[in-house]
This record gives sequence, C-alpha cells and structure tokens, in this order.
Amino acid sequence: MSTNILMRPIGFVRSPYLDTAQVPKGFGAKHETQGTIEILPEYELALTDIEGFSHLYVIWVFDRSDGWELLGTPPTDTRPHGVFATRSPRRPNPIGLTVVRLVGRDGPNLQVAGLDMLDGTPVLDIKPYLSNIPESDLRRGWLAEAEIDYKK
Amino acid sequence: MSTNILMRPIGFVRSPYLDTAQVPKGFGAKHETQGTIEILPEYELALTDIEGFSHLYVIWVFDRSDGWELLGTPPTDTRPHGVFATRSPRRPNPIGLTVVRLVGRDGPNLQVAGLDMLDGTPVLDIKPYLSNIPESDLRRGWLAEAEIDYKK
Repeated sequence: MSTNILMRPIGFVRSPYLDTAQVPKGFGAKHETQGTIEILPEYELALTDIEGFSHLYVIWVFDRSDGWELLGTPPTDTRPHGVFATRSPRRPNPIGLTVVRLVGRDGPNLQVAGLDMLDGTPVLDIKPYLSNIPESDLRRGWLAEAEIDYKK
Repeated sequence: MSTNILMRPIGFVRSPYLDTAQVPKGFGAKHETQGTIEILPEYELALTDIEGFSHLYVIWVFDRSDGWELLGTPPTDTRPHGVFATRSPRRPNPIGLTVVRLVGRDGPNLQVAGLDMLDGTPVLDIKPYLSNIPESDLRRGWLAEAEIDYKK
C-alpha cells in the first residue's frame, strides 16, 4: 500500500524570483508577478485549447526546499500549525499549488500572472481552474461551449 | 533538469466508489459524496488545526489509470482537447486535485464531502483552500484569527 510514485517534470517556471526571500508572503502579499511556464516540447500538444481558460492550476515541486516537518510556523502567524493546514514548502511531499491567470501562449510557453515560484521550478501538471473565480472574470473555454451544446 | 521526483502516500481515501463508472461525471454531476481520508498515523500531527478550515485541497494519484495521452475526449464534450486543458486521469503525471468540504475529524481520519476518488486512492498532500469559495460558506481557521491579530 505504501508504494512510491515517480513523477517527472513536464516543464519549468521562468520567474523573476531567484530566492525565496524575494517572494511576497503574508497578508499584504500581492501575487501579480508575471512570468512564463515553459512546457517541454514533447508535451506541447497537451496544451491544445488551453487558451480558452482564464485561470489555471499549476502543480509544481518545491525543489529547493530541504526536508519536511509535521508542525511549522508560517509567515502569517506566530503559532505553529500542522503542515497540512498551511502552505509551507516543508511538506512530506514537496508539492506546490498555484492558481495563475493565463495571459497568453506562444507555442509551448504560457505567459501567466500570479506566479509565486522560483525561477527554474519544475512543473508536474496543469489543469483548468473551473470554479469560484468571480463569474465576471471567468472564461471556461471549450467547456463553456460544450455546456451550451449540451443544454440545447 | 529532467530529474524524477519520488512521492509517497500520506494516506488513502475511503470512498463508496469501487469503479470509475460509479463516479458521477459531466455537467449534471453532483459531488456531495461523503467518505474519509485516512492519514497515516505518522503524519497525524501534521493535521493540527485543520478543523478550522471549511474546505481542503486534496492532491492524489490516479493509481488505476493506465498510461497517458496528449489529447483526449472528456465525458463533457465530443471533441478532443489537450490533456492539460482537461481533468482527464490519463495525464503525464497522474495527479488528481479535488476540493472537499471538511465535515469532521477523528484523529488521523478526515470525514469529507465532495469526493470523486475511488476507494483506496493514495493521497499525496492536503492544503487549506483559502479563496473563492463564497465568503458566506468559507472558514479559514487559524489564518482568519491571525489576520485579525495582524490588523490590530
């Protein structure tokens, strides 16, 4: 039951952040930072129709985080909390999750806003963000079209 | 740059679904199914304070999905789309992402609603869901308390 699972990068983040100290943290933090997600050429076809989505989930690896802990004190509090109740990088599986806004696409490269990853961060997966962005800001690409067809 | 990354389960899903055919899909699909996320005992402490959050991200493995594809036709459409523009299980890294509602906790076991995983699914990570659930439905646990302290 405790089989290990092997993951491989599907691409890498190009971000202005070279060090974690540069990433805005805590309550005032604005995440409007722009950068690029460079998908490896062999996966470019898997981006087909992604332009129709306004926001994407990016699942990535805290590749420069060293080890993990059960309890940690986040920058937004002075008290320790269970690591699964925080966004700490020091997790049993060093998985990061960020919702980004898709600004544009140039072949295998996605221009996005809202990055909080370091330059060179490996990306494991990209999924459309489908819910809970205010209706007025949301586009759902082929899915919205398909929904209209379905309702006819 | 293409280093592989090893992940290990932190727990497993207990769900009424034994087969993918039983999981509701498509536009009418309601995901209010209840079940349990059983965290392994060695990670129980990492759940500290999780009760304060109304909704959680669960990152998990499509462990019964066979292989992957660049383009696929989802149940909600008749046209193929890039796999990164869908929630298909047949992804380069077989990672699933579900937002669940936390109903209760009994030690290492989280009772949740909104499951769409099969029974026995390995879980890789749990994170608090912080944004874009309607304000009236959202609780943010220690983070909301910490925010109040911060604003004083």
